[in-house]
Amino acid sequence: MAVNYSPPEQIDAVPGIKLAAVQAGIKYPNRLDLVLIQLAEGTKTAGVFTQNRFCAAPVQVAKQHLEQIAPRALIINTGYANAGTGEIGLQAAHATCLHVAQAMQLQPEQILPFSTGVIGEHLPVERIEAALPTVTHELNETNWLDAANGIMTTDTVPKVASRQINIDGTTVTIAGISKGSGMIKPNMATMLGFVCTDAEIDQSRLQRLLQQATDQSFNVITVDSDTSTNDALTLSATGRSGVSINDANEAMFAEALNGLTQELAHAIVRDGEGATKFVTVNVIESATKAEAKAVAYTIAHSPLVKTALFASDPNWGRILAAVGRAGIDDLEVEQVRLWLDDVLIAEQGAVAASYTEVAGQMVMDQAEITITVALGRGDADATVWTTDFSYDYVKINAEYRS
Amino acid sequence: MAVNYSPPEQIDAVPGIKLAAVQAGIKYPNRLDLVLIQLAEGTKTAGVFTQNRFCAAPVQVAKQHLEQIAPRALIINTGYANAGTGEIGLQAAHATCLHVAQAMQLQPEQILPFSTGVIGEHLPVERIEAALPTVTHELNETNWLDAANGIMTTDTVPKVASRQINIDGTTVTIAGISKGSGMIKPNMATMLGFVCTDAEIDQSRLQRLLQQATDQSFNVITVDSDTSTNDALTLSATGRSGVSINDANEAMFAEALNGLTQELAHAIVRDGEGATKFVTVNVIESATKAEAKAVAYTIAHSPLVKTALFASDPNWGRILAAVGRAGIDDLEVEQVRLWLDDVLIAEQGAVAASYTEVAGQMVMDQAEITITVALGRGDADATVWTTDFSYDYVKINAEYRS
Repeated sequence: MAVNYSPPEQIDAVPGIKLAAVQAGIKYPNRLDLVLIQLAEGTKTAGVFTQNRFCAAPVQVAKQHLEQIAPRALIINTGYANAGTGEIGLQAAHATCLHVAQAMQLQPEQILPFSTGVIGEHLPVERIEAALPTVTHELNETNWLDAANGIMTTDTVPKVASRQINIDGTTVTIAGISKGSGMIKPNMATMLGFVCTDAEIDQSRLQRLLQQATDQSFNVITVDSDTSTNDALTLSATGRSGVSINDANEAMFAEALNGLTQELAHAIVRDGEGATKFVTVNVIESATKAEAKAVAYTIAHSPLVKTALFASDPNWGRILAAVGRAGIDDLEVEQVRLWLDDVLIAEQGAVAASYTEVAGQMVMDQAEITITVALGRGDADATVWTTDFSYDYVKINAEYRS
Repeated sequence: MAVNYSPPEQIDAVPGIKLAAVQAGIKYPNRLDLVLIQLAEGTKTAGVFTQNRFCAAPVQVAKQHLEQIAPRALIINTGYANAGTGEIGLQAAHATCLHVAQAMQLQPEQILPFSTGVIGEHLPVERIEAALPTVTHELNETNWLDAANGIMTTDTVPKVASRQINIDGTTVTIAGISKGSGMIKPNMATMLGFVCTDAEIDQSRLQRLLQQATDQSFNVITVDSDTSTNDALTLSATGRSGVSINDANEAMFAEALNGLTQELAHAIVRDGEGATKFVTVNVIESATKAEAKAVAYTIAHSPLVKTALFASDPNWGRILAAVGRAGIDDLEVEQVRLWLDDVLIAEQGAVAASYTEVAGQMVMDQAEITITVALGRGDADATVWTTDFSYDYVKINAEYRS
């Protein structure tokens, strides 16, 4: 059950984008497991992909195709990740694109393939092929929630968001979906995310906007420190609103885009495998951004901190121990201060005089907790979002193969 | 319950070393929680200590004292780690040394204090002081197992080992104890370990031998990636055997010492919190030792790999995914090969043709598993020992405060 998250009831459609999700029986019966997103002619698309060296076959093919020509369709299957599948996997990804291209009267290079599911087993392309007549037939502009459902694996809720902003008197829409709840420490994107807008945006600006949005959303969440082989996030701009994004209005568009990607990224953390808490880790007064991030991730990845969060135990010693092993050789521990929400817990290397266990317990009992660490070394900062570590995380990952 | 480990029934005493363990009621009643180790006059001692910046007060004091004069006694308490306790914690560590020195007619600087237990709460020095008449009275050469019991916290079994070797016709003895089962990724030592020998070894050789022994034992084990604030390991040489370690016989002594420290380090992994498996991670054909170690630790720390190990699931995709995110930018995934014990699982970026799920399952069903990854980049290698991640790990760390 996701921590304080349910998808919005109303999703704004994006002119130029049609979607469909069908039950293709790829691995399991009776679930939406194949999603097609059609991009209108003239749409520009940018992408960011996993930095895992074992990147999946569809990721390799999607990157190749994206370099060659503007995509006209995204095809996404669940069940099999088509990763660790070698040459056969590459052939399967290419075959998928070929079949979709034939069904839509496009070139194979205009198709970007995405897969998520179990690693190392082969993708049954014939099941995708068999479902193409249905999925192409069902394409429409309103299927956002179905599409969000169709890309889920161990997710318990579909993740979808939309925004409308007014630029120079015209409404511009941004909508997106994402999926993922385990193997989440994206190093440039979540497991999978697809964001579309009807603004017109040139290719280099589009890529820059996507990278910026990713760096403050999907790139700073972590559930279990494992980076997937299949992470991918795309941003497609159809231009159908007639509004062109330029230097003058970019900030306004970026704010909406960043808010939307952050909402989708937070939804992944809130739906993290076994999550009972949504935890914000703020590291402030750091010498550098990289150092602040390293400390934030060390806290966010510590199994001892995560199990204490699950237990609602204000066991701040574990947080300090994580700060102390985060690799800052010249850290002056007397300068470090630690808060849970706005309760000062520790300063000058020891528990704060004002701290009471009751105050700490009140913070920890909440479903949403902010841990703030001030290092007393400078003015850089970083924020990372994460979850606790529960019995259910072990159960989900021990009992089911993903 | 530790994986294939129980302490030996017979421990060889080390001439010049006397030990005692008593119930001092430091935090809990009815358990051995205070250990005193007396070192005969002329004993030389070397130490390695935690690299956590929040190093505990006793660690700070022990390091200071060790620089000043050869120690004559080690005092170890459980219950409270005396870490994150600021100036009051330092005073408590100094007071402990003062009381022990008075009871043993020594100088405070000749005492090394060690503490383990909950972080951030204050050490009740008066309870240590009250127990000193008893613990000094009970000192004898045979109390090794009691001492191993007396330093346990969440450990389920005492960890103790001894060796005898014959050097130039004379028997030389090495014996040691260790403790720790969670917050285990020592960055130079286990939670606590104390090793003694009756060889005569000069100070610089002693420190070098200890560092080498640590690097191939306590420094390459990990339970949960959390480095304790209190890690410390000492090696004391009484010289009572009359055998002096020199360049000619050092290799023989080092082999015995390394074997003993590895045995004690493995005991910690086997008794890792909630452990059901003892896992050896070998990374071979690496460009550098550091790279091999990074890959081995990435596998050993991956919550997804660890939960698959708990489930006895040959989910090798998770191991490859860990290799792929271990930070080797120019890794050629086609060169990587993966074995579970001697079963080849993956090569050329995909599952091996010869692999069968039955063969993988047979390996995973065992309590002891070796994961071997060949990177195809050079001839450096590294080995790390670790455990799986079970419900009981979460239970132990969520339900009990440590």
